[in-house]
Amino acid sequence: MSILIAPNTSTILKRYNLIRSQTEYICEPLEPEDTVVQPMVDVSPPKWHMAHSTWFFETFVLQPFLPNYKLFHSSYGYLFNSYYNSVGNRVQRNQRSTLTRPPLRDVYAYRQHVNEHIVELLQILEEEKLAEVMPILELGLQHEQQHQELLITDIKYILSTNPLLPIYKTLKENTSKSCYVAPELLNITGGVYKIGFKGDSFCFDNELGVHEVLLEDFQVMNRTVTNGEYLQFMQDGGYTDFRHWLDEGLSFVQASGIKAPLYWIEQDGDWHHFTLHGLEKLDLNAPVCHISFYEADAYANWAGKRLLTEFEWEAASQAYPPASGNFVESDLLEPTAADPNIKGLQQLYGNVWEWTYSAYHPYPGFTKAPGAIGEYNGKFMLNQMVLRGGSCATPESHIRTTYRNFFHADKRWQYNGIRLANK
Amino acid sequence: MSILIAPNTSTILKRYNLIRSQTEYICEPLEPEDTVVQPMVDVSPPKWHMAHSTWFFETFVLQPFLPNYKLFHSSYGYLFNSYYNSVGNRVQRNQRSTLTRPPLRDVYAYRQHVNEHIVELLQILEEEKLAEVMPILELGLQHEQQHQELLITDIKYILSTNPLLPIYKTLKENTSKSCYVAPELLNITGGVYKIGFKGDSFCFDNELGVHEVLLEDFQVMNRTVTNGEYLQFMQDGGYTDFRHWLDEGLSFVQASGIKAPLYWIEQDGDWHHFTLHGLEKLDLNAPVCHISFYEADAYANWAGKRLLTEFEWEAASQAYPPASGNFVESDLLEPTAADPNIKGLQQLYGNVWEWTYSAYHPYPGFTKAPGAIGEYNGKFMLNQMVLRGGSCATPESHIRTTYRNFFHADKRWQYNGIRLANK
Amino acid sequence: MSILIAPNTSTILKRYNLIRSQTEYICEPLEPEDTVVQPMVDVSPPKWHMAHSTWFFETFVLQPFLPNYKLFHSSYGYLFNSYYNSVGNRVQRNQRSTLTRPPLRDVYAYRQHVNEHIVELLQILEEEKLAEVMPILELGLQHEQQHQELLITDIKYILSTNPLLPIYKTLKENTSKSCYVAPELLNITGGVYKIGFKGDSFCFDNELGVHEVLLEDFQVMNRTVTNGEYLQFMQDGGYTDFRHWLDEGLSFVQASGIKAPLYWIEQDGDWHHFTLHGLEKLDLNAPVCHISFYEADAYANWAGKRLLTEFEWEAASQAYPPASGNFVESDLLEPTAADPNIKGLQQLYGNVWEWTYSAYHPYPGFTKAPGAIGEYNGKFMLNQMVLRGGSCATPESHIRTTYRNFFHADKRWQYNGIRLANK
Amino acid sequence: MSILIAPNTSTILKRYNLIRSQTEYICEPLEPEDTVVQPMVDVSPPKWHMAHSTWFFETFVLQPFLPNYKLFHSSYGYLFNSYYNSVGNRVQRNQRSTLTRPPLRDVYAYRQHVNEHIVELLQILEEEKLAEVMPILELGLQHEQQHQELLITDIKYILSTNPLLPIYKTLKENTSKSCYVAPELLNITGGVYKIGFKGDSFCFDNELGVHEVLLEDFQVMNRTVTNGEYLQFMQDGGYTDFRHWLDEGLSFVQASGIKAPLYWIEQDGDWHHFTLHGLEKLDLNAPVCHISFYEADAYANWAGKRLLTEFEWEAASQAYPPASGNFVESDLLEPTAADPNIKGLQQLYGNVWEWTYSAYHPYPGFTKAPGAIGEYNGKFMLNQMVLRGGSCATPESHIRTTYRNFFHADKRWQYNGIRLANK
Repeated sequence: MSILIAPNTSTILKRYNLIRSQTEYICEPLEPEDTVVQPMVDVSPPKWHMAHSTWFFETFVLQPFLPNYKLFHSSYGYLFNSYYNSVGNRVQRNQRSTLTRPPLRDVYAYRQHVNEHIVELLQILEEEKLAEVMPILELGLQHEQQHQELLITDIKYILSTNPLLPIYKTLKENTSKSCYVAPELLNITGGVYKIGFKGDSFCFDNELGVHEVLLEDFQVMNRTVTNGEYLQFMQDGGYTDFRHWLDEGLSFVQASGIKAPLYWIEQDGDWHHFTLHGLEKLDLNAPVCHISFYEADAYANWAGKRLLTEFEWEAASQAYPPASGNFVESDLLEPTAADPNIKGLQQLYGNVWEWTYSAYHPYPGFTKAPGAIGEYNGKFMLNQMVLRGGSCATPESHIRTTYRNFFHADKRWQYNGIRLANK
Repeated sequence: MSILIAPNTSTILKRYNLIRSQTEYICEPLEPEDTVVQPMVDVSPPKWHMAHSTWFFETFVLQPFLPNYKLFHSSYGYLFNSYYNSVGNRVQRNQRSTLTRPPLRDVYAYRQHVNEHIVELLQILEEEKLAEVMPILELGLQHEQQHQELLITDIKYILSTNPLLPIYKTLKENTSKSCYVAPELLNITGGVYKIGFKGDSFCFDNELGVHEVLLEDFQVMNRTVTNGEYLQFMQDGGYTDFRHWLDEGLSFVQASGIKAPLYWIEQDGDWHHFTLHGLEKLDLNAPVCHISFYEADAYANWAGKRLLTEFEWEAASQAYPPASGNFVESDLLEPTAADPNIKGLQQLYGNVWEWTYSAYHPYPGFTKAPGAIGEYNGKFMLNQMVLRGGSCATPESHIRTTYRNFFHADKRWQYNGIRLANK
Repeated sequence: MSILIAPNTSTILKRYNLIRSQTEYICEPLEPEDTVVQPMVDVSPPKWHMAHSTWFFETFVLQPFLPNYKLFHSSYGYLFNSYYNSVGNRVQRNQRSTLTRPPLRDVYAYRQHVNEHIVELLQILEEEKLAEVMPILELGLQHEQQHQELLITDIKYILSTNPLLPIYKTLKENTSKSCYVAPELLNITGGVYKIGFKGDSFCFDNELGVHEVLLEDFQVMNRTVTNGEYLQFMQDGGYTDFRHWLDEGLSFVQASGIKAPLYWIEQDGDWHHFTLHGLEKLDLNAPVCHISFYEADAYANWAGKRLLTEFEWEAASQAYPPASGNFVESDLLEPTAADPNIKGLQQLYGNVWEWTYSAYHPYPGFTKAPGAIGEYNGKFMLNQMVLRGGSCATPESHIRTTYRNFFHADKRWQYNGIRLANK
Repeated sequence: MSILIAPNTSTILKRYNLIRSQTEYICEPLEPEDTVVQPMVDVSPPKWHMAHSTWFFETFVLQPFLPNYKLFHSSYGYLFNSYYNSVGNRVQRNQRSTLTRPPLRDVYAYRQHVNEHIVELLQILEEEKLAEVMPILELGLQHEQQHQELLITDIKYILSTNPLLPIYKTLKENTSKSCYVAPELLNITGGVYKIGFKGDSFCFDNELGVHEVLLEDFQVMNRTVTNGEYLQFMQDGGYTDFRHWLDEGLSFVQASGIKAPLYWIEQDGDWHHFTLHGLEKLDLNAPVCHISFYEADAYANWAGKRLLTEFEWEAASQAYPPASGNFVESDLLEPTAADPNIKGLQQLYGNVWEWTYSAYHPYPGFTKAPGAIGEYNGKFMLNQMVLRGGSCATPESHIRTTYRNFFHADKRWQYNGIRLANK
């Protein structure tokens, strides 16, 4: 990961507490029963997320750096290691719902225990050591933020499988009506673009290796595709017309019986969708989301357009100033419609992750860090597609122009959407 | 089911409350998190058991018989129907762990609600109607007792999959040592035996149809097979010697990597087993249990013996007086060793269900009851094997000589064991 | 198997040649390409059948008894052993279609080679040795006849999966029309029946252990169920009405999308079925076949009747003289309608195997032969159902009143049908 | 596909006959039985290949262009269409081994029939029409060549699954010994490279869209990785050391029990490999092949190097003149060792396809042809990796610098190998 210039201890601590408490804020509306299930293998039990992100600090910060630190529980390493072979054996990913114990209250105690020792660590550490700890602590916080987004999407999925369609949190009354914003293709001039993270603040290792990419002229849509537009694709028989589809995409939707985005439900002739605030009528101006890459690509083909590459996305984002977006802090937990008052490119950040037609591969010169941290990103660089820009479940402080998210092409439970490009 | 002579209301109510409260007694040591998972499809979440047995009373007693009864919740029928097609659609069996809601406390409230209305029903019902309700109420209580046994075996399985090996309940100190009782073959004289339930108290429909079966002379072992004897089979290479095994039994243990009974763990050269009281050293004099029919049959072949048929078992039980057994009321939740002071047949009841070499088929003249109750037993009468005698997880008042339990040959999570026969 | 009084050598040889050549007669219409595939795991490639039945003689007759016998090929034991663990490793059952080599002509040469050495053996063997060989030779011939029936059903299945619906053999013109024979329930008096093989000619070990079974009075249908009757069940919604079905039967037909017997095809409003003579219009008077036990049982329930047990079937067959049946020698390879001129029980033998509601379990006192021969039958005695009476693909000389065929309840590719019983 | 300047008719015909007869040359050593099986879904039966490549000409050339052409058989379209949705329904890919009919001789007749009508077509067609037919005819020939390579790899796989390890064709005695050629990293200067097909002869549509790619300086290994080098990786525990592996690569080799390249067999302490000429001792100087992308990548990581991207490969090939390679015409059907007399880059063409770390994605501006031909390549452009350079099973006239082959990362039955790169 990128080197970090150490700020002072109290600033760090404030940031640590802020981010850590956000996890508890997310889990607060849950019943203990909600925190233990795993309705599909991609989803982890919320209790597991809470413990795993804590285990990360215990394993990579407290154990190596806090003298005489005693583990909270000798088995938690086995229970809450996710995928770090370097750290040892662990519960298999698809077995996480077997962990009814420790109960939720023990996991809260675990979090508390680790938090207290992080405070202690930061107080006793000499400056030199602090500089060594800082990047790992920061990585732990970034890691926690990633799990916060997963918590939200996993909670949504867990509740959605329940026939009672439980409400996670009631939304404050929203009286404003969304507007239609016409699609517009914006020109981006080709040429050599510098891709990758250039600053001196934090970034993940997969963003490192600034390199030049030669792009041709292209056009990018001013906003993401809306539910209304996607509905037209559906009504035009888009899901069954093989001409729009990648071969494995067609097999996927056919084998899974998919005929609409995840969470969409037709009721009495109207389309609704399950949200964390309950079942709601579809806002046709809001961005379509919870679709697979396959569906994004099929839609683009149907529309006579294409998806951007991740390099085009990054180039476009350089050409237009970042606008503030709809992030997790809005507490809306659903993407919102484009703003008719914004000219040019909008919705780049927040709202929905945008599927790109770029495989998640290493940048030139990519190297894995030594040890367990080297397993963070590098070993997943195959058969996944890059997404850019963050979503309504992403913390605002977590996103960057160069941020590379990645998922397999069939994944639908994230807030993933579509932005179109044109030659 | 068999016709029941209605006792007076207060007796019924006492019995109703006693049995219903036993379910809560069983679930009392659980965390809410324990009550929602389903680590294999045979296991149901404890919360589901609690709600389903309540749904049975609501659906088959309150709805038809209590005027103006209002359902506790309109969706609970969909959520907690097990397999009654007559009653309507339902959550698929393998999806029961998706039901994180209603939370456990709502299920307790549901139980309370139904209990109160059963009291009301019994108070207001005229005698004639009461006679009509009584058999169904009794069936509901017998049903609840069956789920109590399943609750115990399911809880055991759920906790066993957790690397922490949680303790369900600490056992009172037991200072007595078990004794070795020599195996002895007892002669049973052949002839015509009357099989099936003959009394006027409750029985299940699968016990009805008293019929005569002609048996040849045979011998039955005085007690069930012990852990120590089974260990000899293992040490003699029993699990890998194909000559002892049914073809599909061998495939089963090979494909599943089975080399010992379920819950057995070898540690430092000693065999232990997971129990609801924690990991314990194996008592070599105690009955072996948690084995499949395949293992029971292979053991019998190795020993040069065979399993009994269910008719032989019932005939043997007629020849010897029923002894009291180790039932759920002992709170031991593990089978105990034979008693050296008992001459003749022992351990027939309680301790471990005894696999018989009889397919679970209808008795001659078997007929299904009309409506949903007819789905209780009849539709499962294929490809399952009969077990007899009850176990340490069975309520004492629930078992009978003629009681037919049944499971597929590969099931191991029940307290199932072996009694040998000889020509 | 039962002891056999040795006939003279030339009689034996004649019988040997007759039976062995029948296998080649069956395979004669095949292309080499037909003989190598395995479209489902139950089906074996015809080439494999031809080689395996030859391997049986080589392994159990020539190797132990013919001095200096040299194996035709050192690898054929590995290739063509079916399931005899005692004999050693082998190609897995579901991998039989990988055996494109040896080519068919080599398998013919293998058959020729073994035949010649059997002749040699019979000529040189002393009488004492001959008596020892005889039962195994006979077992080999009975085994070959079993594979002849499987060859026919496997060829039918192989050809049926081909969109060209190839014709195995054109049937001679048949101008006679089938007749409707009214169903009639015939009374069989209860009492003690002797079950099992009593003679001194050949039988399989699973028929041995003559024992007495006590039966109540029952009724048996004069003929098997017809296509026309089964069609009524279908038209009455039989396949979707859960009340008729065993639970696992309903799951089976739903999961497999089964709505009619195997090989039935609806074309332009008329029901046809694929036969070895091509696609033919359904004869409504002919026996229904190619159904699972589940369908047989559901039909019986729909009709308000039940299936016989295997003991009732055997008892009924004792009460009525065996009539000649439609066996493989007729070369029709489809069951034919009942004969209006026959009074009383008919179609007991040949035509279709009759599913009974009896699990395939050992008879009292059943013992496995020592060595590989002991693996012939005994290890399959679980979770299969007994069928009785033989079919239009069974050699006439192969069937007996006491003959116990057995298949899993979901198997449909054999000529299996239904005879009804009534209390 | 690229536009083709039509040569004269007799030249075309000669080329047509040459390529078509090569397919028969490849199939000549096969038994009919070999031509019908499908031991894994990636493999197609040789008979299917022969018919499918013929169907291509019938469907896309004869049907549209030859007046009054009558189909050889009305069902062959259904049987031998591979994946063209535009053309209609078809036998599912994993069901190709059900096609025992038509027999091989009918497929030969089909080939003959189509060949004769192609001759007729070329004779009667006017020049204008000829220009229209020519590109499709050429595509058909290129398509046939692709299936020739698949035929060889599929035949190898089919024979390898047979315990007899049959010999496809005996190799002429080869007395020359291979030499060791030291690995050497060659410098390629970065800069802007033109990627994609630029000529006016045939190419596939996936090569079109010449575009500029900006590359940094890099180094390429002079030859491909040898069996001897790969053996060192194995002996160093390469297959079990997670640090070298992509996460899904490690899961793949663990779940599949893979510990060596496909076809490698250790016998008496020596490594052999199954070849089309029988089992042979491994030549340590020959290129390693029959490995997955995962293994190629893990080897590169172990060696402290990396794989090339497809752009680097094409750039390197531009910098060095193409050398002749070991193609299918050599009839060796195995890759051969590097030539010590060649300085600089060698083994670029023929021998083994070289896995690149480039996803098979569309080039900028890629467009699908209208109609069925548009399904040839475009719909597969996801989750596959590009391979470059051809193999010992590729026809020499088929390969180009810009040729993009592609397979899923787990495929091992092609002649795929490794060339290393260095920053």
